[in-house]
Amino acid sequence: MHNNDIDILISEVGPRDGLQSVKGTMPTALKIQWISALAASGLREIEIGSFVSPKLLPQMADAAQLVAHARTLPGLFVTALVPNLQGAQAAFEAGVQKITLPISVSEQHSLANIRKTHAQVIEEVRLVVALRNAQYPDVQIEAGLSTVFGCTLQGVVPADDVLRMALTMAGLGVDEVGLADTVGYANPTQVRQLFTRLRNELGPVAGSAHFHNTRGQGLANVVAALEAGVTTLDASQGGLGGCPYAPGASGNIVTEDLVYLLESMGLRTGVDIDRLVAAREWLHKGLPGEPLYGFIPDAGVGKNFRYASQDQ
Amino acid sequence: MHNNDIDILISEVGPRDGLQSVKGTMPTALKIQWISALAASGLREIEIGSFVSPKLLPQMADAAQLVAHARTLPGLFVTALVPNLQGAQAAFEAGVQKITLPISVSEQHSLANIRKTHAQVIEEVRLVVALRNAQYPDVQIEAGLSTVFGCTLQGVVPADDVLRMALTMAGLGVDEVGLADTVGYANPTQVRQLFTRLRNELGPVAGSAHFHNTRGQGLANVVAALEAGVTTLDASQGGLGGCPYAPGASGNIVTEDLVYLLESMGLRTGVDIDRLVAAREWLHKGLPGEPLYGFIPDAGVGKNFRYASQDQ
Repeated sequence: MHNNDIDILISEVGPRDGLQSVKGTMPTALKIQWISALAASGLREIEIGSFVSPKLLPQMADAAQLVAHARTLPGLFVTALVPNLQGAQAAFEAGVQKITLPISVSEQHSLANIRKTHAQVIEEVRLVVALRNAQYPDVQIEAGLSTVFGCTLQGVVPADDVLRMALTMAGLGVDEVGLADTVGYANPTQVRQLFTRLRNELGPVAGSAHFHNTRGQGLANVVAALEAGVTTLDASQGGLGGCPYAPGASGNIVTEDLVYLLESMGLRTGVDIDRLVAAREWLHKGLPGEPLYGFIPDAGVGKNFRYASQDQ
Repeated sequence: MHNNDIDILISEVGPRDGLQSVKGTMPTALKIQWISALAASGLREIEIGSFVSPKLLPQMADAAQLVAHARTLPGLFVTALVPNLQGAQAAFEAGVQKITLPISVSEQHSLANIRKTHAQVIEEVRLVVALRNAQYPDVQIEAGLSTVFGCTLQGVVPADDVLRMALTMAGLGVDEVGLADTVGYANPTQVRQLFTRLRNELGPVAGSAHFHNTRGQGLANVVAALEAGVTTLDASQGGLGGCPYAPGASGNIVTEDLVYLLESMGLRTGVDIDRLVAAREWLHKGLPGEPLYGFIPDAGVGKNFRYASQDQ
């Protein structure tokens, strides 16, 4: 949720995308401390978890409990990932303020990942929107289009396919359509072109950018997304998550480094970097031995750094 | 040296900036193998070494020998760093095709680093240009302005100071003025502004961008530099060099990841990534245990990657 005192909304996805990707399960009490610390650093939006079967993702079994806690934190917008109608129902009941429905533009990926054709996915979104409209009208729905910059199974994913699916989602009544570089294939030229088209065709329904850093190109893609007018960026503390391919190849873009990038460019995020870096403590405690990524935690912000809000 | 078959010239600085920053000294025979492998990957320009006193930098003592070897490699433009007139004389005699003179725009940094005021530095450049003009007219001279995005000693370095020094250098007769983010302070907004001013004021004398990845912002800054019209980018294999601040905070931007960025954006570099990655073998042999950085060597280029030249 954007406010007037920030230019860019960082949507922290670590508690969902990060924690569902690691082998260990972080104890709920430590997750609560971590989420509190993230919010206290100034992050305005956190994806708290995923409402999926605990059999599939035991790391996410406490999602409802975490949402209840997160809703007590002042100024925080509480979101969750939801794969289907059943998950949406659970997320709505738990009190989330936004749900994100992942939609693979690559049908091969959709079939491999959730065993659904596009027709089945579209029908599911229709049911979720109907449920929201009928019973939870204040909750926002985002369609998070995945594999939009390419797919490990399908290879090239044509931009026309992405736009067609985005328009379909907008037509179904979702509030926002975001684009995700699921496998780390995006480059800045492609990012600029695709988000420009998305904004031209969807207007205010054009949503967030979700980049992975698999090939070290995450922040380069952010620069291109900013130029295309994107104002919401997903990131993960310590770069946790995002299907890393290989040791050293981190997953999501690192929130700490993203905040530095944006603030140094004069874009207000509302986030205090020192407090954000301090929040890593809970990850170290909750996931001992799990490698965390990011340059700012080691290098510091340097002598010249100032927060963008100090320029005002 | 630009050719018509590439869009962006990558100037590989690993043999100089990288090897002078590590504790160990790579044996000359292995340096020769490494430089050959780098050139064989398609890199067109390599900064072979630094012509400084071997007492100061014993790692660079074999610079003349390496230049002699590099000059035998077909299609390679051979450059070296030179701190003063004496070094320039030695580099000219060794047969380099270009020298880079490092010039700190922060006078505090200049005094701390080479114990010279700006007046003394300018006088030295005048002498080097005179020597070149008199005896080595075919050799190019680049002024590499350092600390232009900020300095750990001075803090902020005003853009006007950078432009004034750039114009001074152009007036002295150097062929090219490049800008270096010596301490990893640059952000894309600043990069775009400073290189745009440089090109506006210097025209074709405006030169390369040299970014460090200390805070993980290197490739983000490359995107901004490209927009400002920069066509020569320094990089280092494995990210070696560039005054790393902390473990994990690599120095120069990583050549492997830069080639991926540019080629995936449709910009031809002439470099074959597989052969480039294979050249790391010589670093592993020559500097055992030295950490190398980069995402592409681990993650690979992925299924969608194609070289920009294939689009033509």
